[in-house]
Formats: sequence, structure tokens, C-alpha cells
Amino acid sequence: MAITVVGSVAFDTIETPAGKRDRCLGGAATYFSLAASYFTDVRVIAVVGEDFGRRQEAVFQARKIDTRGIEHMAGKSFFWEGSYLENMNEAKTHITDLNVFAAFEPKIPDVYRDSEFLFLANIDPILQRRVREAMPDVKLVAGDTMNYWIKDHRPALLEVLKGLDILLINDTETKMIAGNNNLVQAARAVMALGPKELVVKHGEYGATLFLSESASQQVSESAEQRKSIGVKAFRAPAMPLEEVIDPTGAGDSFAGGFFGYLASQPEQSPTAYRRAMFYGGVMGSFACERFGTERLQTLTRAEIDERFNLFRELTHLA
Amino acid sequence: MAITVVGSVAFDTIETPAGKRDRCLGGAATYFSLAASYFTDVRVIAVVGEDFGRRQEAVFQARKIDTRGIEHMAGKSFFWEGSYLENMNEAKTHITDLNVFAAFEPKIPDVYRDSEFLFLANIDPILQRRVREAMPDVKLVAGDTMNYWIKDHRPALLEVLKGLDILLINDTETKMIAGNNNLVQAARAVMALGPKELVVKHGEYGATLFLSESASQQVSESAEQRKSIGVKAFRAPAMPLEEVIDPTGAGDSFAGGFFGYLASQPEQSPTAYRRAMFYGGVMGSFACERFGTERLQTLTRAEIDERFNLFRELTHLA
Repeated sequence: MAITVVGSVAFDTIETPAGKRDRCLGGAATYFSLAASYFTDVRVIAVVGEDFGRRQEAVFQARKIDTRGIEHMAGKSFFWEGSYLENMNEAKTHITDLNVFAAFEPKIPDVYRDSEFLFLANIDPILQRRVREAMPDVKLVAGDTMNYWIKDHRPALLEVLKGLDILLINDTETKMIAGNNNLVQAARAVMALGPKELVVKHGEYGATLFLSESASQQVSESAEQRKSIGVKAFRAPAMPLEEVIDPTGAGDSFAGGFFGYLASQPEQSPTAYRRAMFYGGVMGSFACERFGTERLQTLTRAEIDERFNLFRELTHLA
Repeated sequence: MAITVVGSVAFDTIETPAGKRDRCLGGAATYFSLAASYFTDVRVIAVVGEDFGRRQEAVFQARKIDTRGIEHMAGKSFFWEGSYLENMNEAKTHITDLNVFAAFEPKIPDVYRDSEFLFLANIDPILQRRVREAMPDVKLVAGDTMNYWIKDHRPALLEVLKGLDILLINDTETKMIAGNNNLVQAARAVMALGPKELVVKHGEYGATLFLSESASQQVSESAEQRKSIGVKAFRAPAMPLEEVIDPTGAGDSFAGGFFGYLASQPEQSPTAYRRAMFYGGVMGSFACERFGTERLQTLTRAEIDERFNLFRELTHLA
């Protein structure tokens, strides 16, 4: 089933210990779309400038991603420059030029309206909410956000959370939203704000899925786990990587693998959620292996499933 | 099969957001012994002062831990005072009084000499090596260390590493020993110094077992994993805990559960190693639930196995 994603399509200049790349194709919606495209149909809503040409368009076309919702405006595309020289786990931002993105007014093409899945990538929560409200009939809505919106745009963000089925954020963001330093307590507090499911991404240590009571009742859960954790949880590993070339977009690629797999399933059962967590980790790990979106452009489903099996081997007792 | 452990038996004054306890029974050998005692026979080599009396002795006796190797000296036992007020993941040390520990000369009781397993807890590598050499016939030797020895006692530590089958340390220590910030590369470098197996503890995110080529050849491994990771790995989760009362000793309890389970098995197969990683996580999680060794004193094997099943539920796809 098709996913519509709204978010940034951008150019990134990235420096890591492995080297430097100028103006790679980037942006959350780009990474998300590429990762999700290996599982299901993807439709993008974004805005780009005149610097987004045939070469960039071709990256989406090659993965059969619908770009009719990418608006072209006069001016330049969103540009980000950052480096990971001291810390591979957190980018140091040097330049953020919003450019055409500053005037972004998401418009939903009519041909996107039958999408059953909606992903609200990390953009202004006011825009996230507008898109959510314009697509009231979707079956499942997931979203992302970041420290900036949590800190300075809390009321608007809280409105978005109310309309989310799944929120995907990292440890710091979870604790920030909740104002609580214990991850389990913070997760419960965030879920009380709306999201039925919460995926907390731990970077190189993987990610934890917290399932709401209603979802967890569908599985045979032990009373002990609910007692100990308070909510039902599932932990997926990240791949121990010999070489991280560029972590940019790993979180968005996780989201694409996770939500793409979920959308490809006839039923979003707890088992499907667990497998989705693995596919999220798989796509995040591939994203780190090359600069920008390079690795995500040339994967095969066989490579993806081979790595899925590695994740199983990495975590399963037998 | 019996484990002999050499390390500290101490008194700890601990403050966490959950409260404060004065002079709890502590020390790496204490946590290790208690955790391992649920799986196999444990024998301790340590030194204590006159403040170690019947009440402390009774904690070991209740778990049938052999204390004939605990030497009693005039003076006071090792004392540590620390807090976790700002950061539950890392203690802030206020006081370290070595006391009788400063003159520790490990003596191995004859009745310990048939131990097939040896654990060298975190003490001066010169003492670790002496004990290792005095017990040349053990079947499997595991050990721990810390930043202080890595930084300022490297030559002595390198000698210890040569004689280890398994090293259990955390991420920072692994990277410090190797002088390399990539965990996989660092793990490989550390294993080249001696340990056939390396367990890297990630605190609240669990732990990764790196298996040497020779061990990994015993299991049906995919060529892809060796290609991607360079070594065979297994990741065990930590329990997402609703409330961490006191993280002191969690790493030593992990080691006790891990090595205790391994020692209880007829064969130290890769499957046994994987299960041992889970039991390590299980014992580490229990340790955090009460101050000091309180929770580790009163467990049952049924509670331990119930939590083992929770760890499986937390990580397995179905």
C-alpha cells in the first residue's frame, strides 16, 4: 500500500573522517523515500529550487518514487552543511540555508489522496498538522521531529502528536518531550500524548519499540514484562559496522525501512512491527556505508533480506 | 564446575536519585560471586578488614559461596563512596580508601585449585597475572579491567590480556585499549592482544559479544556477516527498567551471570555463549533494582529464568 511522505528534499555538504562530499542529494524525505521504495510505493511532497534538476529527479525515478508532489520554485533548494569529525554519532552543523523551504506550503496532489500510509518527516509541526488534517482517511500515520521543535514549538508539536499512530525519535528527544530522564517512564509519558507506538532510536545501539497496551494485548505477553517495563517493548540491534562512511540520513532511512515494510504487510500485527524494526535497522545500516544516498540507490531486495538474516543471527539465541 | 574469582570485597556508600545507603556490602568480587552463585559453585579470593564481620560473611554463606580465600587483616576494608545524581550511567567517585586492599597479596587456598574456571575481576593487572599464573590448569579464564589500568599500567595489562580467554569491558575501555574509535575495529584490535572472546558492555543498551574466528567456525555463519563485521558478533539487550535504583555492580553482576552460566554448561559452545550473554543481562538488570547487593541476595532460579524469557521476548521476532 502506498505511502505519502512530506519532508525536506535538499542538498548536503558533508565531511566525515572518510572524506568530504559537496552538495549530495539529501533531505529527510529523500532518505525516507529511497529506503521505503524497496518495500512499497512511495509518493513525495516537498519543495525544491532551480538547482534540483534532471540528475536529482532521476534518483527518484530509478526507484519508481512518485515526485508529482515535489513543487519547483524559483531560488535554491534547502542546503545543509555539516561534519562528523569529532563525533560520528552527532553532526556538527555549519550551515543551514532554508532557501525555498522557508516558504514551503505542502500541496497534496489528488493522485496521492488514496495513500493509506502517511509519514510526516521532521519539518515545522504546523505543516505536519496541516498535511495530517488534509489526509484524514489514511490508515496509519507516523512521524518524526527534533529538539528544535520540542524546545521552541511545543504547543504545535503537541497537536501533531495527538494525530500520530507512531512516533520515531531518539533517546534525547524522548526524554526532552517527557521532561524525564528514565527512558521507560519517558516513553510512557510520550505515548500518553498521542502516539500509540513509539520507536526510540539509539544510534549505533539499535532501537526500542514501545507498544501501547491495546497493541500489546494482541500478543501473548507475559504479565511479568508488563509488570517490569510497564509497557510492551521490543529491541532491535544496529549492525556493528566496520566502517561508518557517513551517518547522515541513517535515522530517516530507518524510518523508511520500518514504515515501508509495515505498509507492505496485509496486517500491521505485532509480528509485523517486530520485523519492521529489523528492516529499519537494516536500511539505517546500509545508509551509513556510503556518502549521502549512494548506497540506498543501488540496493536489491536480496541484499536487504540477506542483511535482515544477519540481524536475526546477531540477536537470536539459536 | 567451580569458578574461582579474585577481586575486591568492599563497603560502598552510594547515593542515587532513589536515596542513599551507608556502607553497603560491595566490591566487584562480591557482585560477581552472588550473581554466579545461581548457576555454579563460586570461590572467592579477596582481603577484608576488621569491619567485615558475621553479617557480611552470612551474605556469602547464604549463597553457599566459598569464602575460605577471603583473608582477614587488621585495619579497614576497601571503602568506596560515590553518587549517580546527575548521570545514572556513570558514578561520580567521592572517596576511594584502599585500606587493607593496598597490601593485597592474593593467596590461593589448596581447596580452590581444582577450579576449572577463573575470573580476574578489576584489580591491579600485576595481581591478576599472578593469580592466572598460579592456576595454569584452569579450563577458561575471563577478566575485567578499567580505564585507570589501561591508561597508566598498560605493559602489565597487556601481559594479562595474553592469558585471557574472555575479556569483559565497556565501550570506552575497548576503544581506549585499541586507540580506535570504531567499535568493530577496536574489538578486533583488542582480540589480537590475547582474548579469544570479547564482551563489550553498553550499559542500558546491552552488550555485544565478539567471537574469534576459531569459535565462530563452529557455528553455521554466513559469509556475509564475516564480510560485514569482520568478526562474528552477538548482541544481547539490557532490560528497559522503569526504575533504576542503583546501578553499582551491574557490570560485575553481568560478568557473574555470564561466566556462571558458561561454567554450568557441559560445553562452552557458541550457543552457550549466546545464552550466557542473556543471563549476564538478566543478572545486571536485577542488580539495578535495589541498593547494593540486596536484590542479588534473594533471587530464585525461577525468577532468573522468567526474566531470561523476557529477554527473549524483547529481542526475538517470534
